[in-house]
Amino acid sequence: MKLVRYGNPGEEKPGLIDEGGTLRDLSAHVDDIGGTTLSDEGLDRLRALDPSSLPAVSGTPRFGPCVAGIGKYLCIGLNYTDHAAETGNPIPEHPILFMKATSAVVGPDDDIVMPRGSTHTDWEVELGVVIGKTAKYVSVEDAMEYVAGFCVINDVSERHFQMHLSGQWTKGKSCDTFGPTGPWLVTRDEVADVQELDMWLDVNGKRMQTGNTRTMIFGVAEIVSHLSQLGSLHPGDVISTGTPPGVGLGMKPPVYLKAGDEVELSIQGLGTQKQRVREDV
Amino acid sequence: MKLVRYGNPGEEKPGLIDEGGTLRDLSAHVDDIGGTTLSDEGLDRLRALDPSSLPAVSGTPRFGPCVAGIGKYLCIGLNYTDHAAETGNPIPEHPILFMKATSAVVGPDDDIVMPRGSTHTDWEVELGVVIGKTAKYVSVEDAMEYVAGFCVINDVSERHFQMHLSGQWTKGKSCDTFGPTGPWLVTRDEVADVQELDMWLDVNGKRMQTGNTRTMIFGVAEIVSHLSQLGSLHPGDVISTGTPPGVGLGMKPPVYLKAGDEVELSIQGLGTQKQRVREDV
Repeated sequence: MKLVRYGNPGEEKPGLIDEGGTLRDLSAHVDDIGGTTLSDEGLDRLRALDPSSLPAVSGTPRFGPCVAGIGKYLCIGLNYTDHAAETGNPIPEHPILFMKATSAVVGPDDDIVMPRGSTHTDWEVELGVVIGKTAKYVSVEDAMEYVAGFCVINDVSERHFQMHLSGQWTKGKSCDTFGPTGPWLVTRDEVADVQELDMWLDVNGKRMQTGNTRTMIFGVAEIVSHLSQLGSLHPGDVISTGTPPGVGLGMKPPVYLKAGDEVELSIQGLGTQKQRVREDV
Repeated sequence: MKLVRYGNPGEEKPGLIDEGGTLRDLSAHVDDIGGTTLSDEGLDRLRALDPSSLPAVSGTPRFGPCVAGIGKYLCIGLNYTDHAAETGNPIPEHPILFMKATSAVVGPDDDIVMPRGSTHTDWEVELGVVIGKTAKYVSVEDAMEYVAGFCVINDVSERHFQMHLSGQWTKGKSCDTFGPTGPWLVTRDEVADVQELDMWLDVNGKRMQTGNTRTMIFGVAEIVSHLSQLGSLHPGDVISTGTPPGVGLGMKPPVYLKAGDEVELSIQGLGTQKQRVREDV
């Protein structure tokens, strides 16, 4: 299933995208797409519905973040061999973890608003993992059972805030609007091999990032298992799993976003995001 | 006012501690002590009540975390001159920021559960700041208007997870039970000078930390202002403002918690926490 949340910010309704690409409303069946919806049982209840029986939504409403009430937003750094290289960093021994404030989360096509004083706002296409079941001390072998599904994330990053404000990285990752998440939460049964997904990101129509999840240093199952040794992962938690090469910071010379730029990004089977960049006035 | 949340985990009710030290129930007036309660107007409504008219709560119920539904838990590192020295770190130019997962938050007297494999679990008494009003780009001069009140926090830290798992600090700060918060949310009008509060922490009755908020490198107003330049602070967000000297890591040789230890900590006017340490079995 491709689950979505559509409507104005703060008023999103639950929905799904059917096989023909039609947006259909799920309000009669669930309150929202969030922690309580995402268990195997909760998802099975939605799977049992006949999509053609659900009301089709007219027009082209905005999509909100594809998960409501995210408890924590965990991000893995330097998780692609070639991205670690472009930033001049060694291959980490364990997954590098930082957090993005949930107040940064927005819909997939909402504007990226550069905070005042920002001169180094950068892009990062990433595979998002949405937790469906509480995970603690889970093995790599069992880890995928705790995953509800996947989505596209733009881990927008202010590099000066991230690296030159005395630390730590979360400073450059948590600005308002720096967490476009969606459009779809694609349930894990629809993703044949999560370590074999193409991904790309364009700025103003020019291809900047090209990658595939097969070059991750730590795969999804390893990440979920590792994080679950540190503390519980709960339904509705989101893990952003790192970015492939091609970020602005890695260009020679570096290139950063400016007002009016358009960013478009996608991961195979998970949909496309498109954001316009603007200043905070 | 001294606001509290009392009762079993997940079932806490709102209350206040009156001038005689009696716990009184606020359920008839607010749903909970959280973001929507903490505006100046919301707090004024509670102040207008006659405490003696509120039902006294019998027995000695557990206290939960003194804020419900914390959106983000921001922590400032190395924020006391002498603590920076004991850890061998230079004085930071800006507040160092990391995040504690909200899933780590527990009541002030709940057990500290060392995660499996933990050998370096440490203590940190800290002043907690609870946001009452959305803050963005606020000046140092205006910053305190956005603060609802203050509380005691034990920023429990697994030093090996924090420093030797490829990074970042959040790894050692976010384990389940690593965020005892409370017992009281003391509204800011009751704290004459937040930069003049004594604080201490004992392990098994032995004084380990002694400090005063006057030796903070960045005071509360500077921290709130600085963080609000990066992204919005929302009602119910919590900021833990760093710890004075005397953590286990700073001892020669270092000393860490073990099962059966008892930790007691307090900040002047903000109440006392007491935790028992146990292993996760």
